[in-house]
Amino acid sequence: MKKINVGINGYGTIGKRVADLVSYQDDMNLVGVSKINPNLESNIAIKRGYNIYTDNKYKNKFKLYDIDIHGDIEDLISNSDIIVDCTPKNIGKEYKNIYEKYDVKVIWQGGENPNIASKSFNSISNYEELYGEQYARVVSCNTTGICRILYPISLKFNIKKVFVSIIRRGTDPRDIKSGPLNSIVLDPVSIPSHHALDVQKIIPNINIVTASLKVPTTLMHMHIFNIDIDENINIDDIISLLSKQPRINLIKNCTSTSELIEYSRDLLLPRNDIWENNIFLDSITITDKNIYLYQSIHQESIVIPENIDCIRSMMKLEKNKYDSINKTDNSICNRKI
Amino acid sequence: MKKINVGINGYGTIGKRVADLVSYQDDMNLVGVSKINPNLESNIAIKRGYNIYTDNKYKNKFKLYDIDIHGDIEDLISNSDIIVDCTPKNIGKEYKNIYEKYDVKVIWQGGENPNIASKSFNSISNYEELYGEQYARVVSCNTTGICRILYPISLKFNIKKVFVSIIRRGTDPRDIKSGPLNSIVLDPVSIPSHHALDVQKIIPNINIVTASLKVPTTLMHMHIFNIDIDENINIDDIISLLSKQPRINLIKNCTSTSELIEYSRDLLLPRNDIWENNIFLDSITITDKNIYLYQSIHQESIVIPENIDCIRSMMKLEKNKYDSINKTDNSICNRKI
Repeated sequence: MKKINVGINGYGTIGKRVADLVSYQDDMNLVGVSKINPNLESNIAIKRGYNIYTDNKYKNKFKLYDIDIHGDIEDLISNSDIIVDCTPKNIGKEYKNIYEKYDVKVIWQGGENPNIASKSFNSISNYEELYGEQYARVVSCNTTGICRILYPISLKFNIKKVFVSIIRRGTDPRDIKSGPLNSIVLDPVSIPSHHALDVQKIIPNINIVTASLKVPTTLMHMHIFNIDIDENINIDDIISLLSKQPRINLIKNCTSTSELIEYSRDLLLPRNDIWENNIFLDSITITDKNIYLYQSIHQESIVIPENIDCIRSMMKLEKNKYDSINKTDNSICNRKI
Repeated sequence: MKKINVGINGYGTIGKRVADLVSYQDDMNLVGVSKINPNLESNIAIKRGYNIYTDNKYKNKFKLYDIDIHGDIEDLISNSDIIVDCTPKNIGKEYKNIYEKYDVKVIWQGGENPNIASKSFNSISNYEELYGEQYARVVSCNTTGICRILYPISLKFNIKKVFVSIIRRGTDPRDIKSGPLNSIVLDPVSIPSHHALDVQKIIPNINIVTASLKVPTTLMHMHIFNIDIDENINIDDIISLLSKQPRINLIKNCTSTSELIEYSRDLLLPRNDIWENNIFLDSITITDKNIYLYQSIHQESIVIPENIDCIRSMMKLEKNKYDSINKTDNSICNRKI
């Protein structure tokens, strides 16, 4: 089988995970990863045998740490069929001209402005729409988590209105600069947050309002859903529907994000990542045609398999979304937790 | 003016604040406070000149620290016209027999089972209902904060449904035992939380669902409101209505609980307490006949003025709720922040 060549521009929280997952796919070849600053993550790239590319002007920084540089970032781009841009928020757009110069396909992440690509992506909701496209943007962790629930429900029921409260982790575990340390921060103070607009990029015409705040924890986000359905519904039908979806865990005997992460550690999942939505089964409630539920979202990993599926769609490697989703999910280990 | 005698059973987070506020009222006399364990708070009671009562069996513990004990807790009860029970959650019910023995009026706090008194209390919502009553329960901080918003809105508009997400502080600032430290804890995992039922004790027939979780912060709670109103509404009417209510601050230029507490510290408010609801003005949004807003609630102090008003209602000191509310609010300093 001919493998398509994938380059990863940016080797941080998202990039290092996408690189690993690309390396596990039998239809993809990892050309290499780019890095601007040498740090412990560079050691990981070396241990995994990934070629490291950097901007030529930063080469000397890596020499100081005896880290071999394979080439300039433009070499990485020119040798790739598709680039997954995992540079920090708002940096991805600065590479757009270079990507165009080499006529490479590109996937940006959710931190970029939605207009950077004409289409945004979520595996279960619109895999087919990105088929053969040149540019895409994989929506961010919270939007991904919301779409995975709303899309299947919207296929089966008439959704009147959705309100999601998003309680976000303050920062990622590796971050030593950000907070908050003892505060609840409205981010933004205005309602709706951008997530509602982003969901509508994936599921058009859905009536959704989101409110988003940050709290002092690093592990996972939490969502509180209120889905107003315009008909009488049965809780068993909802549970049955959700349980059949890929990348959705229905969790019992658990009431917190820390217990979930401990469970992932005990399962020896790589980096204790949980890339599925985690719906707390005991929270699913139906009253007056409204569905209520809690779910938690692992911000570092939820979009990783979506990037792999997005590559398959754009490179026309699989026509059917479920074929790609299953291939991705089975590439490391049995993900069902 | 004859003053009524008020005893405070329990001198912790709530009790010490109620004691201070009772001592500032010109129609009340503080008989004293009860305490089971000598700690730094006992020093505060002594510095303020409050008589300390304890269970006779604990007297020796206080002797070790040279703390004078004025008498047994039963002496405190028998010398009072009304007791404000500020003992820890679920302890208040153990005193009920002793209170009955001395035929004293009693106010319990929201941590007790709602059935401990036939009526629950919130100043603005049902002051008149407690007039002359023997027993009352002042609802907890979150329920108080919710009632203060919903009651005035329910008088003016037809509320179809309310959904409040409650993001609770993990514990109080002085606590050295509790968490969570790095987790989001669903408390409870089931929906609705007890707050919805408690609000209905105060505002009957209101259609409300609440969801409650705890996060690693000590400063304040945060509420996310979605109030579904069955008519077209104007944002200016809502802001105007809320701005006229007592104990509601409309806050601008602020996006977090920590900035609010810093503001209270800069204002030199006692203990940096903020007993008003703090509605973030920039969050008030109206779409499709739904009101959305954030408010933060200072868990240590919000119910303190409600206890004072409850005393006035039960002791028939003021007939009109606004007379009591204004008297309480003006007794320390101008509270409008």
